[in-house]
Amino acid sequence: MASEGVGVGLVGFGTIGAGVAKVLIQNADVIEARLGFPLRLTRIADLDLDTDRGIDVSGIRFDADGQGLLADPEVDIVIELVGGYDFARKLCLDAIGNGKHVVTANKALLAVHGDEIFAAARDAKVDVAFEAAVAGGIPVLRAIREGLAANRIVSVYGILNGTTNFVLTEMERTGADFEVVLKQAQELGYAEADPTFDVEGVDAAHKLALLTSMAFGSTLDFKSIPTEGIRGLLPLDFEAADEAGYRIKLLGIAKGRTEANGEEVIESRVHPTLIPKDSLLANVGGAMNAVAVRGDAVGPTLYYGAGAGEMPTASAVVGDLMEIAREIHRGSSRRVAPLGTPEASLKTKALRNLGDLVSRYYVRIEAVDRPGVLARIAGALGEHGVGIESITQRAAETGEASVPVILWTHEVKESAVRDALADIDALVDVTERSSLIRIEEDL
Amino acid sequence: MASEGVGVGLVGFGTIGAGVAKVLIQNADVIEARLGFPLRLTRIADLDLDTDRGIDVSGIRFDADGQGLLADPEVDIVIELVGGYDFARKLCLDAIGNGKHVVTANKALLAVHGDEIFAAARDAKVDVAFEAAVAGGIPVLRAIREGLAANRIVSVYGILNGTTNFVLTEMERTGADFEVVLKQAQELGYAEADPTFDVEGVDAAHKLALLTSMAFGSTLDFKSIPTEGIRGLLPLDFEAADEAGYRIKLLGIAKGRTEANGEEVIESRVHPTLIPKDSLLANVGGAMNAVAVRGDAVGPTLYYGAGAGEMPTASAVVGDLMEIAREIHRGSSRRVAPLGTPEASLKTKALRNLGDLVSRYYVRIEAVDRPGVLARIAGALGEHGVGIESITQRAAETGEASVPVILWTHEVKESAVRDALADIDALVDVTERSSLIRIEEDL
Repeated sequence: MASEGVGVGLVGFGTIGAGVAKVLIQNADVIEARLGFPLRLTRIADLDLDTDRGIDVSGIRFDADGQGLLADPEVDIVIELVGGYDFARKLCLDAIGNGKHVVTANKALLAVHGDEIFAAARDAKVDVAFEAAVAGGIPVLRAIREGLAANRIVSVYGILNGTTNFVLTEMERTGADFEVVLKQAQELGYAEADPTFDVEGVDAAHKLALLTSMAFGSTLDFKSIPTEGIRGLLPLDFEAADEAGYRIKLLGIAKGRTEANGEEVIESRVHPTLIPKDSLLANVGGAMNAVAVRGDAVGPTLYYGAGAGEMPTASAVVGDLMEIAREIHRGSSRRVAPLGTPEASLKTKALRNLGDLVSRYYVRIEAVDRPGVLARIAGALGEHGVGIESITQRAAETGEASVPVILWTHEVKESAVRDALADIDALVDVTERSSLIRIEEDL
Repeated sequence: MASEGVGVGLVGFGTIGAGVAKVLIQNADVIEARLGFPLRLTRIADLDLDTDRGIDVSGIRFDADGQGLLADPEVDIVIELVGGYDFARKLCLDAIGNGKHVVTANKALLAVHGDEIFAAARDAKVDVAFEAAVAGGIPVLRAIREGLAANRIVSVYGILNGTTNFVLTEMERTGADFEVVLKQAQELGYAEADPTFDVEGVDAAHKLALLTSMAFGSTLDFKSIPTEGIRGLLPLDFEAADEAGYRIKLLGIAKGRTEANGEEVIESRVHPTLIPKDSLLANVGGAMNAVAVRGDAVGPTLYYGAGAGEMPTASAVVGDLMEIAREIHRGSSRRVAPLGTPEASLKTKALRNLGDLVSRYYVRIEAVDRPGVLARIAGALGEHGVGIESITQRAAETGEASVPVILWTHEVKESAVRDALADIDALVDVTERSSLIRIEEDL
């Protein structure tokens, strides 16, 4: 242990790193009062030694290279905020190898290399904490891992990406096209210059991989999560959703249940989802995040807050530091496995195929406006056993030869809808690839 | 430690106790998978040995008297679910005296005797956990104590009592009188036969006392919390609130800040509150609970779920059991002080006087409908420096000689409004005691 209190080394002194330093310095009094001892930021490493982050780093050793920090006996806990995969992975493994505890906000790293990092931490008897990696400042991992630990988790529904939630909220509010709103989000700093990971749902899938493992005691399986982004959504989809009493949110969804034959099945998926307007999740607007978790005993719960940003993320990072610091101070560590279930007890569970999903669906078809089109569409659906709740031909956009046809299905297996849409898209009347949005009612 | 796994003794085998037993039995597999060892319900004590709780208690020793349980070396953790003050206090202190850890859902006990019980637990180096005591199944205490531990807490707004939230939701929905809705709530099991503690806000104040200490590191001070219940609310209040874009919720509110002179001031109060309809808290309906917590780093967060009931409360109790069981299993305990700040570091902080509150107010005055009344009311307000945003005379109820006058003030000190209302109530035109509802915008 560091000579006085617990020593912290920070690798990566960008926006989040600066936030962590601010919280540690500005709130040092409350942190020490709660811990009973100080938490000291001992060293910082970042390639950029020059930029002024608005923080007084005098008294803190600041190097371009992290190797010294990783070996420093005054550093008990290493904060990894460099991001990315390879360098961050090596950094975490080196820190663990040196007997350091690790706190990280790097969901991409853990979703892909979590098994390796958690196993190394178990063997070295150190902690890896990552509350900041999922839903930023919201302490939802603690809630699931400990607060709801007595429950068989039934479902997790998360608005896990602030960029896309901001874009969806603005598309709904203004009726503007995706590209227009995305540009505005970039100008306002809500979206990155390359927004691919956010917009395509990859960032949400990283977080969902961690949530799924924690909720269902399953091994990490990011690669298998079916992921759809929000690029394909049109203003019309928001209009039609609104008229029917729904909002469109990009959700990470994980569910678990035991089949009649005793097999444990989980599903884990990221896609735009229609949810009832009066649900709490539907009322989470702008760049905010929220996660709705249902347990068999507790019933529905929800956790809301900022999912990103300098200070909210720093709040979660420093909360993790404090938890680990308490353990170090009492000569202990590894209070709980990072995913809530000891690594050896995590089970490999098959993810349910999206084609087997049973849901209601919103479908948008673009077709030439001529007699018999609706009949042919309805016929194709009927052939595949897809019941139609309503089908409406909307007004054509100015100058368009085709018109959108909006339909809402009854509850049906997704593979049937997809098969029907394949047939529909092959009709000469249909001018563009049809799209569907899944509906979730029971949040 | 008990011979195999960690042993649990349950005192109080009523509704919640039965729920705890159900969770421990039905979810034994997931609990053991997460802990890495079993959690065993070893003994139960309850005066009622006969009622069938629908649980197979064979293999569990079941006595009318709790003394044997408290001394049993096979019992590591005692669950106190007897409720009330004196017996529960003695039970907790005896358990602690015997070196047992304690889990309780008893907010009344802790709000009043928490200091004594927490001090005893500190001296005995055992844990006292009470997640179930505040907002039932919602793991909000963990969130504040650990997830947000890096923050200076700015404010806590809680819907902390399901009974009153149910009544308010129904009054708003149906337009019915308080007494009618209360009776219905009793018939549906949402309100007790003697609903005083709920309806008068006392239960919410018990919970708020615990939240306030946890959020602001202050000693427990239940007695000083200004508390108003919901009995005085009329259907008209809901109508007027709705027209102005508000809903009425019984909130527990705690805020903290540091004055210019360095003095730390906190406020802590329970009363019906007007909050914007589009806030998440306003959309928490029925018997559900929610707590909005703002930290200086994390910004706004919110936690939502069932605040009472057999299984949600059991979820929180067993979550606490698991946390303590982990410590016992690793030969450790007292990971964190029950209130999040070591007892010796809790500060006695003065609660701000309600008269010093600055807010906007909704005011209802009942006055005889004759010329000059509004002028006299407005005059009294003006004399006390209370600015009026709007003043409206509503239609009289059938057969009533007087009419309600609804007014909305500008932001003003509460003592000024109260002084003005004292003058107004002394007018010959005014037929009933006037009432006010505080407005909170910044949830």
